[in-house]
Amino acid sequence: MKVGYIQTSPIFNKKEKNFDQINDLVSEIKADLLVLPELFATGYTFISKKEADSLAEELDGQTAQFLINLSKKTKATIVGGFIEKNKNTLYNSAMIVFGSKVLGVYRKLHLYYKEKLWFSPGNKPPEVYKVNDVNIGIMICFDWIFPETARSLALLGADIITHPANLVLPYCQDAMVTRCLENRVFAITSNRIGEEKRGTDHFKFTGKSQITSYKGEILSSAPEAKEFLDFVDIDVNRARDKNLNEYNNLFEERRINFYKNT
Amino acid sequence: MKVGYIQTSPIFNKKEKNFDQINDLVSEIKADLLVLPELFATGYTFISKKEADSLAEELDGQTAQFLINLSKKTKATIVGGFIEKNKNTLYNSAMIVFGSKVLGVYRKLHLYYKEKLWFSPGNKPPEVYKVNDVNIGIMICFDWIFPETARSLALLGADIITHPANLVLPYCQDAMVTRCLENRVFAITSNRIGEEKRGTDHFKFTGKSQITSYKGEILSSAPEAKEFLDFVDIDVNRARDKNLNEYNNLFEERRINFYKNT
Repeated sequence: MKVGYIQTSPIFNKKEKNFDQINDLVSEIKADLLVLPELFATGYTFISKKEADSLAEELDGQTAQFLINLSKKTKATIVGGFIEKNKNTLYNSAMIVFGSKVLGVYRKLHLYYKEKLWFSPGNKPPEVYKVNDVNIGIMICFDWIFPETARSLALLGADIITHPANLVLPYCQDAMVTRCLENRVFAITSNRIGEEKRGTDHFKFTGKSQITSYKGEILSSAPEAKEFLDFVDIDVNRARDKNLNEYNNLFEERRINFYKNT
Repeated sequence: MKVGYIQTSPIFNKKEKNFDQINDLVSEIKADLLVLPELFATGYTFISKKEADSLAEELDGQTAQFLINLSKKTKATIVGGFIEKNKNTLYNSAMIVFGSKVLGVYRKLHLYYKEKLWFSPGNKPPEVYKVNDVNIGIMICFDWIFPETARSLALLGADIITHPANLVLPYCQDAMVTRCLENRVFAITSNRIGEEKRGTDHFKFTGKSQITSYKGEILSSAPEAKEFLDFVDIDVNRARDKNLNEYNNLFEERRINFYKNT
């Protein structure tokens, strides 16, 4: 199957421009799975909860509609980040869309830095979505540093972890190699580029979106400061075989009775 | 405190020579913690259980005595691997020794490849040993690929993960950066060098022993094909602060109710 990412340079508070940027990059491309960055439509660096609220949407908002159109145009399953408003609560979420439907929403479990001032932490467990017999998990940005996130998705059967991100630390891309090796899954980290200077914060986003194989190979690595899109062909069945060699199966050999979880 | 590793080139089935090699390398060195490779006294590539049994020891065997002498000479806590015989069961173990005493033994929880033919998997949970107010955890080689091993040790309070190894795959050294970042602990991976060709197996050990900081910095990296020893000064208190920044604490923010463990 053909999977990829779009590395964008979102302009703060300009949803239409951010949608246009993606449409221009995608052009005539067809694919099976396409991952967009975290908060790709809104930008990242809010200065108040009210501001975040003003850019938030429900599951039938304009970002959902954009993703549905993008899915129809590309034929791909799309995963992308947005500010979710549910009743009066805001989440840093990502939705998964295929054809004319929103299949589900993941609410970021581990909020980074001042996200905690605007968003509530995710209030439901990670889930895996089956589309055309491919099992797709979602985690968002900083979730990478908690090994339990990718592990949970892999144990739930994910073949591919989609990973919308707005990375500002330099560690994640290397860590995704470990995440894929230890779980024998594919991962698609879709990061953004550019800078945002708002209030007292000045973030520089690190680009280098990455597709990583179940064997820890980096199948695609984007530049660090350029809008970019890339696709690779992968065989997801490889992620369903947890045997490292004829003696070692990375899932069957977990010694769960001896691990400390709490 | 001064912590280090000795990267050796064990000769199969020559305990005395392997002890001498370490004594020659250590010379007049004094330290606080010193880590030796997995199975440093015996070599790694057995061809039968009987052969492994012939090199196995209890906790008062000649390897324990060697490590006690090494601890007295260097003033350091020593962690090193050996074949443990307990009743009629063999384990791929590592003991921790300080002064005139064996403080404890860790039995490798995740056996690699044909180790399963000679050894039984560890039958007790990981533990942390307190020596002079420093909390020391132990894991062995392939344990690195299971994130639960280092996580368990860190949750048990380890400041430093000692990691005797006989690595043959190329991934661990990079992965230890992730293990240290995600747990905010120090780690000392003591690997061996050299080759062993026995039976149908031909292993080339990858060297590159490594000391990694709680921030994922590589504080020491050994050559890949040379006997080597190195020490660095670390402040273990840094590993007791799990705050990544003023908003994020990597332990308090684990969302254990939402993780899948089984």
